[in-house]
Amino acid sequence: MPIFVPLKSTLIWISSTLPMSMIKPIPVPVKNPHLDWICFDLDDTLWAVEPVIDRANSRMFDWLASHVPGAAERYSVTDWPRLRDGVRERFPATAHSVTALRQTVLDELMAALGHQGEQAVAWSQAAFEAFRVARNEVELFAPVENMLTTLQQAGYRLGVFSNGNADLQQIGIGRYFEVVLNADMVGAAKPEAAAFSALVQACGSEPRRMVYVGDHPHYDVAGANAAGLFSLWFNPEGAAWPAGQQRPSLEVACLSEIAAALALLQP
Amino acid sequence: MPIFVPLKSTLIWISSTLPMSMIKPIPVPVKNPHLDWICFDLDDTLWAVEPVIDRANSRMFDWLASHVPGAAERYSVTDWPRLRDGVRERFPATAHSVTALRQTVLDELMAALGHQGEQAVAWSQAAFEAFRVARNEVELFAPVENMLTTLQQAGYRLGVFSNGNADLQQIGIGRYFEVVLNADMVGAAKPEAAAFSALVQACGSEPRRMVYVGDHPHYDVAGANAAGLFSLWFNPEGAAWPAGQQRPSLEVACLSEIAAALALLQP
Repeated sequence: MPIFVPLKSTLIWISSTLPMSMIKPIPVPVKNPHLDWICFDLDDTLWAVEPVIDRANSRMFDWLASHVPGAAERYSVTDWPRLRDGVRERFPATAHSVTALRQTVLDELMAALGHQGEQAVAWSQAAFEAFRVARNEVELFAPVENMLTTLQQAGYRLGVFSNGNADLQQIGIGRYFEVVLNADMVGAAKPEAAAFSALVQACGSEPRRMVYVGDHPHYDVAGANAAGLFSLWFNPEGAAWPAGQQRPSLEVACLSEIAAALALLQP
Repeated sequence: MPIFVPLKSTLIWISSTLPMSMIKPIPVPVKNPHLDWICFDLDDTLWAVEPVIDRANSRMFDWLASHVPGAAERYSVTDWPRLRDGVRERFPATAHSVTALRQTVLDELMAALGHQGEQAVAWSQAAFEAFRVARNEVELFAPVENMLTTLQQAGYRLGVFSNGNADLQQIGIGRYFEVVLNADMVGAAKPEAAAFSALVQACGSEPRRMVYVGDHPHYDVAGANAAGLFSLWFNPEGAAWPAGQQRPSLEVACLSEIAAALALLQP
């Protein structure tokens, strides 16, 4: 395992002598020669996911209520946690797939309402589609596109591994990424080693030349650390690092700091 | 006017010698002795406002459609920009008040639907209330509470001047601020000098001991500069500063950088 020496960095701030001076960190899009790939978590790293999923669940139940006989009387969005958790317990084999989980919930719901056959399948699919569209109506954190552009201009290659089912083409930032994987495609979810090794393989690189960026201490940081990747913890709320957990390689409070932080990492 | 000398700052990054080291800026909650008050813009500075207003407008028209006879047939949320702009043109005297503007739109809408008297007033008020509740369901930018706590702990006093009608008690961050003003209360909107002088007076301070923080080059930065306050431009997307405009005193890409940036400002 690599050993790091303590580092100091001088960020240079500029100032004019005009009546009101401006102090601003100079962007430092310098590529770290030891690193090739910067791979990202999506939910809560590039956008806040809770309001998105809440709205998408509402849209799914609205669709059911207005199209499926009996649905409005029997089910509302407040039933979602119970339905989801029930299916998750009974189908551990597909626990890594939030898409399979949701489809199973919908299939069971159709059966409970007495619907079956092609009509039930069509309704399930259409309800999922109502979810899917709303699930990709995300509000990117403000620095996202500037950050991705800066990393690309510095010479990094960019990838994604998400446990969720966001669609980067729908969201409009697919063009930044050469590799986009999720738990569904790989059959394994973070923090499993299989998830990260699939990512390393897809990038055609090696763990030591990759940094994984995410907000979650366990799924993202611990998973990446265990798989031998460098980890960057995105910690916008200034939370304390969980006691006893192996620390991330880097930590930033803002996505706009990532390029400068990467430049400082010395394996 | 004060003259600023060029500044350099050394931010210290720490690193452990564990297998994966962490590099992280140390929080520097040091108060700048030349400054007392840090005052904030709200919309697009502490939260993204567009999705909030879109949803609140939808809720208002949903309320109208389900309670006011004729409303569902005649009006939908897509009519909002036209209705708003029409009233804004015809009532320049209350142009600083987004609340008066909206109430006038609702009054005119009731009249157009043939409703009048107490019933029309009650419907107008209830529709506004549907808007108001949704308008305060904001998703704070992740660093907001940590940033406000850090500034308070450093010894700054905190204030707000907004052109909008957000309610910080509803939103849950009212306790951080000693002074909360908006254009409605003052009868003037940013970038007018009257807006900033009301803020200075409410804080019982002087412009040179105050920093105004906002995302907007014209309303926030130019307004504060012209009134003699220091200005801090919150620029999360890394936008270029508009040519020809007097620059902000400070600029940050992330709210978590504000405390450190303020410490560097030398009048």
